[in-house]
Amino acid sequence: MRAVRFHDRGDVRVEEIPEPKLEDERDVIVDVHWGGICGSDLVGIPADLPSTKCFTDPPYKQHEYIAGPMVIPKPGHPHAVTGDTLPIVLCHEFCGKIAGPVPAGRKAADGQELKEGMPVMVDPRVNCQNCHSCIQLRSSNICPSWGFHGLSGGGGGFAEKCAVRANMCYPLPESVDLRNAALIEPLAVGRRALTQCQFAASKWSKKSVLILGGGPVGIAVIFNLLAFGVDADRIFCSEPTALRQEQCKKLIKAVFNPRDVEVPDECRKATRGEGVDVAFDCAGVAPGMKDGMNALRRQGTYMNVAGWETAFELPMQWFMMKEIVVRTIMAYNNDDFAETVKDYVDGKFKGAEMMVTARIGLDDVPKKGFEALVNNKDAHVKILATPKRELLE
Amino acid sequence: MRAVRFHDRGDVRVEEIPEPKLEDERDVIVDVHWGGICGSDLVGIPADLPSTKCFTDPPYKQHEYIAGPMVIPKPGHPHAVTGDTLPIVLCHEFCGKIAGPVPAGRKAADGQELKEGMPVMVDPRVNCQNCHSCIQLRSSNICPSWGFHGLSGGGGGFAEKCAVRANMCYPLPESVDLRNAALIEPLAVGRRALTQCQFAASKWSKKSVLILGGGPVGIAVIFNLLAFGVDADRIFCSEPTALRQEQCKKLIKAVFNPRDVEVPDECRKATRGEGVDVAFDCAGVAPGMKDGMNALRRQGTYMNVAGWETAFELPMQWFMMKEIVVRTIMAYNNDDFAETVKDYVDGKFKGAEMMVTARIGLDDVPKKGFEALVNNKDAHVKILATPKRELLE
Repeated sequence: MRAVRFHDRGDVRVEEIPEPKLEDERDVIVDVHWGGICGSDLVGIPADLPSTKCFTDPPYKQHEYIAGPMVIPKPGHPHAVTGDTLPIVLCHEFCGKIAGPVPAGRKAADGQELKEGMPVMVDPRVNCQNCHSCIQLRSSNICPSWGFHGLSGGGGGFAEKCAVRANMCYPLPESVDLRNAALIEPLAVGRRALTQCQFAASKWSKKSVLILGGGPVGIAVIFNLLAFGVDADRIFCSEPTALRQEQCKKLIKAVFNPRDVEVPDECRKATRGEGVDVAFDCAGVAPGMKDGMNALRRQGTYMNVAGWETAFELPMQWFMMKEIVVRTIMAYNNDDFAETVKDYVDGKFKGAEMMVTARIGLDDVPKKGFEALVNNKDAHVKILATPKRELLE
Repeated sequence: MRAVRFHDRGDVRVEEIPEPKLEDERDVIVDVHWGGICGSDLVGIPADLPSTKCFTDPPYKQHEYIAGPMVIPKPGHPHAVTGDTLPIVLCHEFCGKIAGPVPAGRKAADGQELKEGMPVMVDPRVNCQNCHSCIQLRSSNICPSWGFHGLSGGGGGFAEKCAVRANMCYPLPESVDLRNAALIEPLAVGRRALTQCQFAASKWSKKSVLILGGGPVGIAVIFNLLAFGVDADRIFCSEPTALRQEQCKKLIKAVFNPRDVEVPDECRKATRGEGVDVAFDCAGVAPGMKDGMNALRRQGTYMNVAGWETAFELPMQWFMMKEIVVRTIMAYNNDDFAETVKDYVDGKFKGAEMMVTARIGLDDVPKKGFEALVNNKDAHVKILATPKRELLE
């Protein structure tokens, strides 16, 4: 089958590889329809660190295409769960239909028995399902053996087919258009950014928030805030590029260009001088953090949702003098994903498809996908690819 | 009267200044008995930043004697509440007795009417008592006009007398020895480090914690942990100097020298491999943060209680991959101080006096106090000074 594989930094190839087989009795095969390119796959400036550098060493380059392999397992260091090393199939944001024949008893995340042809969204995470994080903390996202289809081996969404655990599949009803369902994955990231703020659900409606960066993650956070009942008039966004500003303005009014205005001052003006309750960092750059910390009210929450390519350095004059709480997230857990699917199916993220700025075929992923996002970032938000040429018509 | 005043970095003088007068009807005069030198007054390496540099500019030098004036108001920038600028009387950790005559109706923090000769501990904070932080958040410590007697003007503890708000005085019973009562101030800092972790009180007894730095703040945190019912066997401390190790060992067993052992490994060994629930940073140095972040369990809390002289940079491989919550404190609020006084009076901090490694007179503060702590840090934990020569006998 056709697949897009990561071989090394800047070296992503479309090639013919064997189809996955049903080797594990917990698995099903997904016939992939659409997959998205994630910012963590690529965004950033060309890295100067050697490709043997480990993910956990500084500088913390968190984008595979330019600075990788990092999360992607290098030769000699197979992933604890998938057992795979380079080259690996890319794409961890994907949906499709269950491929047949399906042995009996393969149950989806919601308990339904999976049947051939059922449309599903895939929770792409792999983990051990056996440790303190997976069991007691209900946070398989921080399992010591965490990984993703599309990053850690075990196949991925940029291939015709992918074998995944049946219980990581979320059946989608007819009403959901598979053309956009892959967006559920970044929306689930936005969901966890909210759940990990640890506010009681009833408190959200009164919150004021600042989003730093109006890209896919920033938009996913805004959609979740609206779904959580936050007043659109109390959601502010700082975003320098025109396309993203325009997209955010479809959801909220106050979209500031940090090159034109003092974002913290604007936030204070809109909050009786107090500042915002939460700043969501969806940009991962130092000037954004400075604005976010400055814009926060005393004892506010700074929620990092970004991968950083530079030092994550907290400015003490705000962190300490305002007793700010700093949190971050690592993907999402089962509950976050399940709730996001439910809200998506229920139509709570209507309009999320505006994020899709291009649709391409698998063969075009290296050039019209990765290179386009690296070299022409301002023209894109989310690029989706399909292995099925007929879906492009 | 005699007083020790800060004139500029490294320039602390003993001099004759006018006695404070009862000019505000909310005030009383405290006849100072003992005051402590705080780490924030001085610790660190000689700074190369000009003395006109502002506290809120990087690099964030947070120690007055070497890098100041920072919190101390510079000429042309009087403090919002005290109205004072340099030179200012030092010492924000002090106790004494109420000086007479006391006009009627001057009520202490606990509502008692203050009388001449009553022993009191002073909450040294100044604030506006009128803003969102002071009123709604019950956190006058983060009032935009926050300050301290002994740092922000309004007199301080290194003087024969100091005028303070009556309601910032905590009457102490006969049973409390005024010779050590100034330790209540650093103990209140330790208290807030616990209260701001935001755990339910009942949860503390099951927590495991790592203290980074066994100096006065570290010891204050340990005393509070014990008062909160944390098992001494689940309190670990990382401290490189012999004197401080020895002091900590009077309270807990597991005191590690980070130069000899891998502290995170030791913590994991003692916690079934999981790591500690909370790391209290009472050191403010990058290698300590690295150990603390590494030693934390997944979704653990990193509580910063230190002033930093270098960048406060979070290592992403632990911060993000373990979803660590990062918090910090700014001094303490009214509740923290009141509870600390109560626990001190109730004997819950018995043994805290071991922190006192020297007692000196006011005249000796510059040399045997500040210089001794800067140049001979390993020989000292807490130095107390008194303006009353007879108390030194």
